[in-house]
Amino acid sequence: MQTDNIKRLRQNSPLIHNITNIVVANYVANGLLSMGCSPIMSNAIEEMDELPAICQALVINIGTLTSEQVKSMIKAGKSANKNNIPVVLDPVGVGATSFRKQTVQTLLKEIKFDLIRGNAGEIAHLAQVNWKAKGVDAGSGEANFSQIAKDVALKYDCIVSISGEIDYISDGLKVAKIDNGTTLFPKITGSGCLLSAVCGAFLTLGENSFELTVSACTSYAIAGQIVKEQLNDNQTGQFYIALLDSLAKLDDTTVEKYAKISFE
Amino acid sequence: MQTDNIKRLRQNSPLIHNITNIVVANYVANGLLSMGCSPIMSNAIEEMDELPAICQALVINIGTLTSEQVKSMIKAGKSANKNNIPVVLDPVGVGATSFRKQTVQTLLKEIKFDLIRGNAGEIAHLAQVNWKAKGVDAGSGEANFSQIAKDVALKYDCIVSISGEIDYISDGLKVAKIDNGTTLFPKITGSGCLLSAVCGAFLTLGENSFELTVSACTSYAIAGQIVKEQLNDNQTGQFYIALLDSLAKLDDTTVEKYAKISFE
Amino acid sequence: MQTDNIKRLRQNSPLIHNITNIVVANYVANGLLSMGCSPIMSNAIEEMDELPAICQALVINIGTLTSEQVKSMIKAGKSANKNNIPVVLDPVGVGATSFRKQTVQTLLKEIKFDLIRGNAGEIAHLAQVNWKAKGVDAGSGEANFSQIAKDVALKYDCIVSISGEIDYISDGLKVAKIDNGTTLFPKITGSGCLLSAVCGAFLTLGENSFELTVSACTSYAIAGQIVKEQLNDNQTGQFYIALLDSLAKLDDTTVEKYAKISFE
Repeated sequence: MQTDNIKRLRQNSPLIHNITNIVVANYVANGLLSMGCSPIMSNAIEEMDELPAICQALVINIGTLTSEQVKSMIKAGKSANKNNIPVVLDPVGVGATSFRKQTVQTLLKEIKFDLIRGNAGEIAHLAQVNWKAKGVDAGSGEANFSQIAKDVALKYDCIVSISGEIDYISDGLKVAKIDNGTTLFPKITGSGCLLSAVCGAFLTLGENSFELTVSACTSYAIAGQIVKEQLNDNQTGQFYIALLDSLAKLDDTTVEKYAKISFE
Repeated sequence: MQTDNIKRLRQNSPLIHNITNIVVANYVANGLLSMGCSPIMSNAIEEMDELPAICQALVINIGTLTSEQVKSMIKAGKSANKNNIPVVLDPVGVGATSFRKQTVQTLLKEIKFDLIRGNAGEIAHLAQVNWKAKGVDAGSGEANFSQIAKDVALKYDCIVSISGEIDYISDGLKVAKIDNGTTLFPKITGSGCLLSAVCGAFLTLGENSFELTVSACTSYAIAGQIVKEQLNDNQTGQFYIALLDSLAKLDDTTVEKYAKISFE
Repeated sequence: MQTDNIKRLRQNSPLIHNITNIVVANYVANGLLSMGCSPIMSNAIEEMDELPAICQALVINIGTLTSEQVKSMIKAGKSANKNNIPVVLDPVGVGATSFRKQTVQTLLKEIKFDLIRGNAGEIAHLAQVNWKAKGVDAGSGEANFSQIAKDVALKYDCIVSISGEIDYISDGLKVAKIDNGTTLFPKITGSGCLLSAVCGAFLTLGENSFELTVSACTSYAIAGQIVKEQLNDNQTGQFYIALLDSLAKLDDTTVEKYAKISFE
């Protein structure tokens, strides 16, 4: 793996188009800025052709989906595909309602995604594995995540990343396991949404989407891990803010030092 | 009153459906997570039947109302009533515009609410008492809050909670006064909106809505009071974040120790 | 210049109507509260006549523009003009897409603005000067900002404020340069959006829009400068929150002490 991704990201400072939800729009923007990127948030159908043409990546997040937004997502996704920029799907709470299920199926049919990133409940739903998801939260169950990641990656011909205490990332053949989890991530809103955007940013760095996704997820997990070293499990508010500082401070040397990645 | 509400809330970890405004969606989600609950934010008409069927409470907040949202609120409210889950109304700035006045009247006609929670200006408006509200802020005036809380509770056959330096909660017969106010609450946005969501979460704990609302409002006020002990009146940003930590740390023993509740 | 603007602002506590974007609605509300003002956020067409009639200023921000919002902006702007309250335009990312360009032209034709406040890229676009803007970020280039501020002020018969390391403010004749910049402002989202709202608040203090805009921009820059004295360039999250505290603590004496203003 290349070991200068964060450095290159800060140098390139890519412009990232986010179609995202009203809950995390602010946090995702601040997180991308902390990583040295330029975020632009827009849902307006009038801008969906042009923005992917001037941006370096598109991140689609269905957290507070509306029917208007679905149209915008499709238009932007097609423009992104035409402009050959990476497209990330964050299928927030996909199993929770019919609307989310149908929308994700439509998006996966109409748009070629480079990466699908979600929590265990969301990706298990896409794999049609039995799992007890809980709204937009991961939920609980027993499952073979390596297999699920592989299956969904093969099914949709893209990288798949399952975030949790351990992250599982697959391109359909290989699976990377990242063991840098932090208990505080599920206690704040938008930690997954921001990671999806960070993945989109890393995917602008080159062609090797699998390695770049592993690099993005490892870097992000470590930024959280470093903060957690100084906090207890109740300091959810402090974690929320300190994570931004940690992302702003993170460098490749630190990531290399902390990273616990294994391959299957 | 039961003295293990916070413990039970963290154990049950209810899923709370919020139809809320773009200003506080993030803070309400983080606050509910800090209390051990799972928030889901959604306004989409397509989801308004299904979400209340999988959630344990519905919280309706009119802070940045749109005509589309009104339709969603009614549909979700009816589904919540059908599914017998508690429904909370936060009539943000109800007196400020005709649109808000009419919408609240429509909501109160179409939906059976378990609780209406607002500031002095909002509840005084519902009681048709003369009061100088100020946009979405409480405003000022002279009024008998105990009587207002009682009157509105009787009028709409639900619990009413008036938040302020002193909280007044009534079921139409009894009135509880909570004297754990904190000067910093009105200096941050969404402190009332988050309290409404926390009340919705507490209402999932049983049938006694009056006691559970008193418990929710007392717990929340005390979380703020504890933070305020270490801050001065200018530290609005610190208060905003530390309140999340305080909610995450709060337990029943602490609430019992600090609580100043009297009944009329 | 009057040296009691902050004091008067906290005394008057004006109600400020914001038509703003989903990214910064929360931060702008908290920032205005920290300055002692009362924010109200609303996009609903149903409220656009009434709100400017009860508010003391209107701030229009196109950050996450929708076609529905454009209609609301025009209606609110006309009502604000009729009610003689100051109107501020924040043309976020105006050069990024045709939709933003056309909307800003429409707004400038339909509404009489008292102030246009933006970053270098945005105001350069309005001056039709060659500049490499980057999405909603300032971008880079060489330009005579004093001249640009003057030109745009003359063209639209209003005050123009260009925010950056140095702020340039013009009424078309005079130009004020404020040299109180802070490197952390461009690293957080919404720092410009909040400044636009703060300018709107200051404009409620009297008729001299040029001096009041200079006062607002100087005060805001200094609030950031004071925070930055205790932080390094990586502490973006801390800066985000501490800026609210700093705005809440700021007084006229401190502003007078720090201010570096020169006139051309």
